[in-house]
Amino acid sequence: MKNLKKISVVGMGLLGASVTLSIKRDLPNSRVVGYSHRPQTRQKARQYGVAHEIVETLEETVENADIVILATPILTFKDYFANMAPCLKTGAIVTDVGSTKTLPHRWASEHLPKGVHYVGSHPIAGSEKRGLEYARDDLLTGAACIMTKTTGTHAVSVRILEEFWARLGCAVKVMSPARHDKIFGMVSHLPHITAAALVNSNKTQDLELAGRGFIDTTRVASGPANVWSDILMTNTPTCIEGIETLIGQLKLIQKAIQSGDEKKVKKLLEQAAAKRAKMIQHKIDQKELF
Amino acid sequence: MKNLKKISVVGMGLLGASVTLSIKRDLPNSRVVGYSHRPQTRQKARQYGVAHEIVETLEETVENADIVILATPILTFKDYFANMAPCLKTGAIVTDVGSTKTLPHRWASEHLPKGVHYVGSHPIAGSEKRGLEYARDDLLTGAACIMTKTTGTHAVSVRILEEFWARLGCAVKVMSPARHDKIFGMVSHLPHITAAALVNSNKTQDLELAGRGFIDTTRVASGPANVWSDILMTNTPTCIEGIETLIGQLKLIQKAIQSGDEKKVKKLLEQAAAKRAKMIQHKIDQKELF
Repeated sequence: MKNLKKISVVGMGLLGASVTLSIKRDLPNSRVVGYSHRPQTRQKARQYGVAHEIVETLEETVENADIVILATPILTFKDYFANMAPCLKTGAIVTDVGSTKTLPHRWASEHLPKGVHYVGSHPIAGSEKRGLEYARDDLLTGAACIMTKTTGTHAVSVRILEEFWARLGCAVKVMSPARHDKIFGMVSHLPHITAAALVNSNKTQDLELAGRGFIDTTRVASGPANVWSDILMTNTPTCIEGIETLIGQLKLIQKAIQSGDEKKVKKLLEQAAAKRAKMIQHKIDQKELF
Repeated sequence: MKNLKKISVVGMGLLGASVTLSIKRDLPNSRVVGYSHRPQTRQKARQYGVAHEIVETLEETVENADIVILATPILTFKDYFANMAPCLKTGAIVTDVGSTKTLPHRWASEHLPKGVHYVGSHPIAGSEKRGLEYARDDLLTGAACIMTKTTGTHAVSVRILEEFWARLGCAVKVMSPARHDKIFGMVSHLPHITAAALVNSNKTQDLELAGRGFIDTTRVASGPANVWSDILMTNTPTCIEGIETLIGQLKLIQKAIQSGDEKKVKKLLEQAAAKRAKMIQHKIDQKELF
């Protein structure tokens, strides 16, 4: 992708630094620049060599950049858009790696100047670990990357970004931000809420006897609280509805147990096992799981 | 353990066959006999050589056995106790590997003859896979094994069984069946219910976009429905209360999201992350996790 001379990433956490490492590996003709608002993180990013250059200011980060990628908590996007607006070159593509997309699209349209093109991105990759010391240049390999566009999104920029993520090893899908947030509210944000609620339902002392089942069911609850509260706060309608749906399903099982309806309990468990088996088979067919 | 000449296991699923394999490995002076009510499973058990002998009847299984271990779905225990009662020798120890303990203790006291000693066992080991083809002689290595006794339980039999499970590599803990069912209702049965409800809350098509988080959070929902419906149906009070507690926690998060209280959302997520970190650290300290 020879037209991408400079690609900048704002935010040097696990995902941001994995993106810069992937660019270094897969796009040898691009210069990748990293930035964090924390001096300590910039220093660490230099030590680990996650980008060609770690710069000191947001201005240096975005000036002349062909692509700027936000990899910070979602609620910071609005300010970043406003602050980078005067420094972006005409034709620059701005994207992000945030887990919700409706509000970023709105904020971009409010704060980015004409001639700068925002497209949403959400690479489905991460870890419950945090920090650039866990960054890996293969974190994106084989991962799905959902890109989002509205009717007003610049078509050429969508195509460039599609190629960009594909070059980093992602399987790209494009959809509207509304559809993205509805689906991921259910398959990602609701599981996070569920895992946290399940841990909070238990006594610390009892957890000493928890087995592998509990550990796996709640793994995501160890994710960074600030990142996740931003995700939930920017996808409120689906989260609220999703919790309601889940409570309905929990009550179905509860009622069946309470009324001694063993057949119904078994049926509900079988339904879940069958649905999950179908999901796993799909992922094996798609070579997303082996 | 030279007094254990014959140890019998009823039920040749993943766990039953893993127990026979472990006995073969760790107790070379004992003869281990396996039984399944299905002819096909008996044939497979012979092919895989999971026990010294696979016999054709329950009578042959339990006659002269020093220990009889039930590894079948819990709701079958009552009938098995009644059917094996006339064939057990005086002094035989009967136990099981079921995930709930209150009802097995009750059924044993109702159906087993005087002079036969029932003690409950629950090795915390398993898999979402099923069938003896997944049995492993190291499934119990390092696993916790909760044994349960009431005031009427034969003390010498408890000691013999404690040594037995320890020889198979388990870390044994003894408690009352009531306490066992309360704790495991929360740390094991509730997560299973939660995982199933979470899968059932989602549309099959949306699950094509589910990532690693969803896959882990719902892993246990792929467990065998018949085994799990038995577990839930034999631990109804804790399951019903546990679902209520979980719904309360979900509503706390829902309310915080709904009212735009970002601080509260973050606090609830932080609380879960901290509690889970404590659990993981405990398990690392106990060398249950590495």
